[in-house]
Amino acid sequence: MNVGIIGALGYSGEVLVKRLLVHPQVNLAAVTSRQHAGKVLSKMMPTVRGTAADRLLFVDSDAAALAARNDIDLWFLALPHGGAADFAKVLVPAGRRVVDLSADFRITNLATYENYYGKHHAPELLPGARYVQPELTDPAWQETIKIAAVPGCYPTSTLVPLVPLLKAGLVSREHIVVNSFSGVSGAGKKNDEFYLFVERAESAKAYGLVKHRHLAEIEEQLALLTGAKTIIQLNPHLAPMRVGIATTITVPAAPGATLDSVYETWHKTYAGRPFVCLLPPGDMPDTAYVMGTNRVDISAIYDVRTNNFIFTSAVDNLVKGASGQAVQIMNLWSGFPETAGLF
Amino acid sequence: MNVGIIGALGYSGEVLVKRLLVHPQVNLAAVTSRQHAGKVLSKMMPTVRGTAADRLLFVDSDAAALAARNDIDLWFLALPHGGAADFAKVLVPAGRRVVDLSADFRITNLATYENYYGKHHAPELLPGARYVQPELTDPAWQETIKIAAVPGCYPTSTLVPLVPLLKAGLVSREHIVVNSFSGVSGAGKKNDEFYLFVERAESAKAYGLVKHRHLAEIEEQLALLTGAKTIIQLNPHLAPMRVGIATTITVPAAPGATLDSVYETWHKTYAGRPFVCLLPPGDMPDTAYVMGTNRVDISAIYDVRTNNFIFTSAVDNLVKGASGQAVQIMNLWSGFPETAGLF
Amino acid sequence: MNVGIIGALGYSGEVLVKRLLVHPQVNLAAVTSRQHAGKVLSKMMPTVRGTAADRLLFVDSDAAALAARNDIDLWFLALPHGGAADFAKVLVPAGRRVVDLSADFRITNLATYENYYGKHHAPELLPGARYVQPELTDPAWQETIKIAAVPGCYPTSTLVPLVPLLKAGLVSREHIVVNSFSGVSGAGKKNDEFYLFVERAESAKAYGLVKHRHLAEIEEQLALLTGAKTIIQLNPHLAPMRVGIATTITVPAAPGATLDSVYETWHKTYAGRPFVCLLPPGDMPDTAYVMGTNRVDISAIYDVRTNNFIFTSAVDNLVKGASGQAVQIMNLWSGFPETAGLF
Amino acid sequence: MNVGIIGALGYSGEVLVKRLLVHPQVNLAAVTSRQHAGKVLSKMMPTVRGTAADRLLFVDSDAAALAARNDIDLWFLALPHGGAADFAKVLVPAGRRVVDLSADFRITNLATYENYYGKHHAPELLPGARYVQPELTDPAWQETIKIAAVPGCYPTSTLVPLVPLLKAGLVSREHIVVNSFSGVSGAGKKNDEFYLFVERAESAKAYGLVKHRHLAEIEEQLALLTGAKTIIQLNPHLAPMRVGIATTITVPAAPGATLDSVYETWHKTYAGRPFVCLLPPGDMPDTAYVMGTNRVDISAIYDVRTNNFIFTSAVDNLVKGASGQAVQIMNLWSGFPETAGLF
Repeated sequence: MNVGIIGALGYSGEVLVKRLLVHPQVNLAAVTSRQHAGKVLSKMMPTVRGTAADRLLFVDSDAAALAARNDIDLWFLALPHGGAADFAKVLVPAGRRVVDLSADFRITNLATYENYYGKHHAPELLPGARYVQPELTDPAWQETIKIAAVPGCYPTSTLVPLVPLLKAGLVSREHIVVNSFSGVSGAGKKNDEFYLFVERAESAKAYGLVKHRHLAEIEEQLALLTGAKTIIQLNPHLAPMRVGIATTITVPAAPGATLDSVYETWHKTYAGRPFVCLLPPGDMPDTAYVMGTNRVDISAIYDVRTNNFIFTSAVDNLVKGASGQAVQIMNLWSGFPETAGLF
Repeated sequence: MNVGIIGALGYSGEVLVKRLLVHPQVNLAAVTSRQHAGKVLSKMMPTVRGTAADRLLFVDSDAAALAARNDIDLWFLALPHGGAADFAKVLVPAGRRVVDLSADFRITNLATYENYYGKHHAPELLPGARYVQPELTDPAWQETIKIAAVPGCYPTSTLVPLVPLLKAGLVSREHIVVNSFSGVSGAGKKNDEFYLFVERAESAKAYGLVKHRHLAEIEEQLALLTGAKTIIQLNPHLAPMRVGIATTITVPAAPGATLDSVYETWHKTYAGRPFVCLLPPGDMPDTAYVMGTNRVDISAIYDVRTNNFIFTSAVDNLVKGASGQAVQIMNLWSGFPETAGLF
Repeated sequence: MNVGIIGALGYSGEVLVKRLLVHPQVNLAAVTSRQHAGKVLSKMMPTVRGTAADRLLFVDSDAAALAARNDIDLWFLALPHGGAADFAKVLVPAGRRVVDLSADFRITNLATYENYYGKHHAPELLPGARYVQPELTDPAWQETIKIAAVPGCYPTSTLVPLVPLLKAGLVSREHIVVNSFSGVSGAGKKNDEFYLFVERAESAKAYGLVKHRHLAEIEEQLALLTGAKTIIQLNPHLAPMRVGIATTITVPAAPGATLDSVYETWHKTYAGRPFVCLLPPGDMPDTAYVMGTNRVDISAIYDVRTNNFIFTSAVDNLVKGASGQAVQIMNLWSGFPETAGLF
Repeated sequence: MNVGIIGALGYSGEVLVKRLLVHPQVNLAAVTSRQHAGKVLSKMMPTVRGTAADRLLFVDSDAAALAARNDIDLWFLALPHGGAADFAKVLVPAGRRVVDLSADFRITNLATYENYYGKHHAPELLPGARYVQPELTDPAWQETIKIAAVPGCYPTSTLVPLVPLLKAGLVSREHIVVNSFSGVSGAGKKNDEFYLFVERAESAKAYGLVKHRHLAEIEEQLALLTGAKTIIQLNPHLAPMRVGIATTITVPAAPGATLDSVYETWHKTYAGRPFVCLLPPGDMPDTAYVMGTNRVDISAIYDVRTNNFIFTSAVDNLVKGASGQAVQIMNLWSGFPETAGLF
């Protein structure tokens, strides 16, 4: 199967290129760039020198021309929000499948989207789009959609531990506090003084309080997947590391809930899922251990003094938090083994 | 004034040496080491080569001999808990003042201490000891005590923002969630595989859940300073940086409390205090900005969706979180300018 | 083909495990540990949770028992020097092939070995062993040997650029100065205060001057591969990064040699070799670009003011500098595609 | 004494501000900024919150107006080359002393300057300017000059070890190879993708080969200070750290030279100099140990196999390599203690 990437030169795009180059079932047949059309991919992405990327040339980012390519079945969009919708509205009518890493199709409710992101460029496509957290979204999505929206990094690290427990009624829907520490690549490749090495090394700090954009999709998914509106406090932070997200969720236990019932619920939900790894209480996930993998490591502990559960999780923000998950979605959608290309 | 340090070779001890070497009112007259007695200080601490540390020899850690030195007015103890009490019980009866960086005299309630740390080596000294958070502890301490206990790093970053607001009734005493990210030096200089460069670089993770030892002093001080028992959730984390603590406190607003009232209370409490810096809402403290300084930067924001306040703070864990604060305490205790030696 | 690893828990061992777990032609059938026999591999190596390592148990490091396993064709030794020879002298007589990552079989000349490393534990095996720098060693090794010695990290980054040019007579054999900067993992997983995160972060420094052990194999290979004794200055340094080696070689140009002739010689030597990548003059290799890959990136520049060539190279010390190269050697030795398992 | 800084917002400017704020003999009376005139210094430089910088406002960068201020005796220029000369040509005729951190007055020979930097903006000032490496330049400079040029970071780390040995005839003037590893702040605060955290972390690489601009001043000073033209190979590299330069110099020993004679010469040259620290052979300087200090640590070792000496040095590129040295120069020029403000 031939696939293409629109927007390969950001951090997510680069991880996507690497995964697709070694994927046994697909062929990376096109990468696009307005600015670099005609150049060799590996010239612009030195980490993939010595691979097929030495023989792949950027093609122009012309949506109509790309949509006309009959050889390409599925396109990955690794673009800023807004731009993704602009491409999708040409590719989808041409019958192409789209896996979108931007926020454009993550929010079902148009008003919510526009509250967080501004005007939507292609609201008419929303009914054919679906937010796909592969471990949580109803598998029927594979039959029905045209656009798969890949969850963001904070949402993945939050939804995977929390959703099954909310559904099972094991935790409160109030006083949920989510603190996340993200590697600097989470901000994308931005030419901003704030992201210079000298500024970020030795720096830990909160940012984006109190209305980070990922709130929109987390809270909408909490409602859709668990059946009731749920408001959370999301405190994002930056840590001086390249990749990774460590998330710590504090939430009051529901009456009668025990640590055992938490682990049982998780086991039931994630049995056989290759990318969710349950750690025993007291063994807290570490971003270094998931780096480069498509795993979410999760763990729980109960504090008898406060009656809170504390759930901790770790993902690689560029892999399970973006491009690895995108490949996982493609695998499921295409009938490939779920782990293909995702070692 | 001559001062001495017992236990100079840890990370806190090193910062203490540096501060005392440039302090205009004191002379670092003794550093002790059982293992290195007779060696030159700067041989064991290469960061202070080229200073008076080239001419200062370690003396043996013999408590009686140290207590007998009439030339030394005040001793800093930069030792593990237990060891500090062992020295204090010889130094104090000899009439020496003690500034202790360990946990031994931080906890007023003996049962609490022994619950968290095990048997106390010198409980008879507790009545003459005082926990001194210079910006919060009643200044009468300067007249009455023999041992000043220097607050830990997590406590300083938590108490400074939280205490005035609890006293003023602006925040709930329930559902207080404290998440802190600490640089690796917070763990001390430990020969443990876990703290190797290759293990910690690129790693963010929670640890010490759910009963970190600093809980004992935070909760006791919250009770003593604000007049009511207050239980908190403390979630400590490690971040891949050498120094610094970034703390984020989520707490429900009390009825009627506003962001303005928070800042007013802080202004009233900290007006004229040289080491507390209030940042405007939306400007979150950054550990890189306090690195090497004795400052606590604090900021607040209100989330109308959740009715929570989020307070953020940053300190250098080795300076305001340990040795800088120890020097500040010595300054106040000795009638020196509060900022002496603390640029 | 079934393979085993003796000594999987160091940094090289871990990379080896990861590569073998995804290798299409081999099955990682055994990992050994004296201390952890019976435990699950992924419990001790959290980076490979969620893979076949969840179902692989450590077996005891009993050489005789391992040698008796008829199902395992080839063993990787990822052990300190000395220990490797101890295993090899049991495995080789039992007919097993050995790929050794230690120094034990890298030095042909026994006196040289013992000068640098002390007494050899199995000198009788040296005739059946061969130093295999896959791009440089005569391919006849594949037919004739029992033990393949994997080159060290500094040697790979030095030999690949230098050997073809010395053979072609393009550079002086005198005044060769090699400066290398290595990531901290190059020292292995050592519980030594020197390697703690707080000590190494923000530290660049020379070490191991002037007789680093890798000199022994570099100079012996320079002699064997280029036909004349050649003495070099090797200045190793540590840089505050997890992995990678950046090597810079300064060497006077031979009379008549030009930058063009350097590149021509390199092109001729490395045409079709998948893991050597030539960068144009002025485009200097970067350890970040080879991280996780089995590539050596090399580049050359000429300084008319000094008549020196400067050759720069970069490898991932744990991949092309150790375990990736070990897999590449296994691939060639076993008739697999050279790049199998080495994306 | 009142001093001012033109260009305080770069990395060197920031270190300069910090040193001057605690300097016992001087008062930082002015900082300038075209863009931020009227703003409070500590708003733009959060690391100095809580100091006198809270009460110091930026003034406009108007050269004539600055030159007219009779209250300011000495100006530091922390500007790019070209810009520094533009200010100097107004300040100097007005009788102000200038300490310039740029390259504008480092090169005595105008043709050399223009070869490396392009057209000089104020060549008429060159006769009144002097390159001041405080430990090496003839002290007569203090009586005769109007502009002191502060040496660059690579030059300081190279000249301090090398100059006395060349003068004493202990080392060859040929085949001198200098490899330096610099922290990322060495490049200045540049909004360039290359300097982003994600790009530089885990990256070691050579750059600026083969004609780095610092060659101009190193080679001119080698000639002026040692009496003979000397060509060197300078290989600069970047290491993933905020500050620091580690330099390693390989040079053939002159006939009869010994390691003892090297140390004797260094001792004679640097006896009583507070900022040069000689380490014994085998104890290699470490950038972490000089971080934040104005020291140069140097060490030597001899390799009998190659007849080379290897000299290693470490400085903090922003302190001894820039702003600390600038303050040291001001101290000497003004009759203050050499170490004032430089703990």
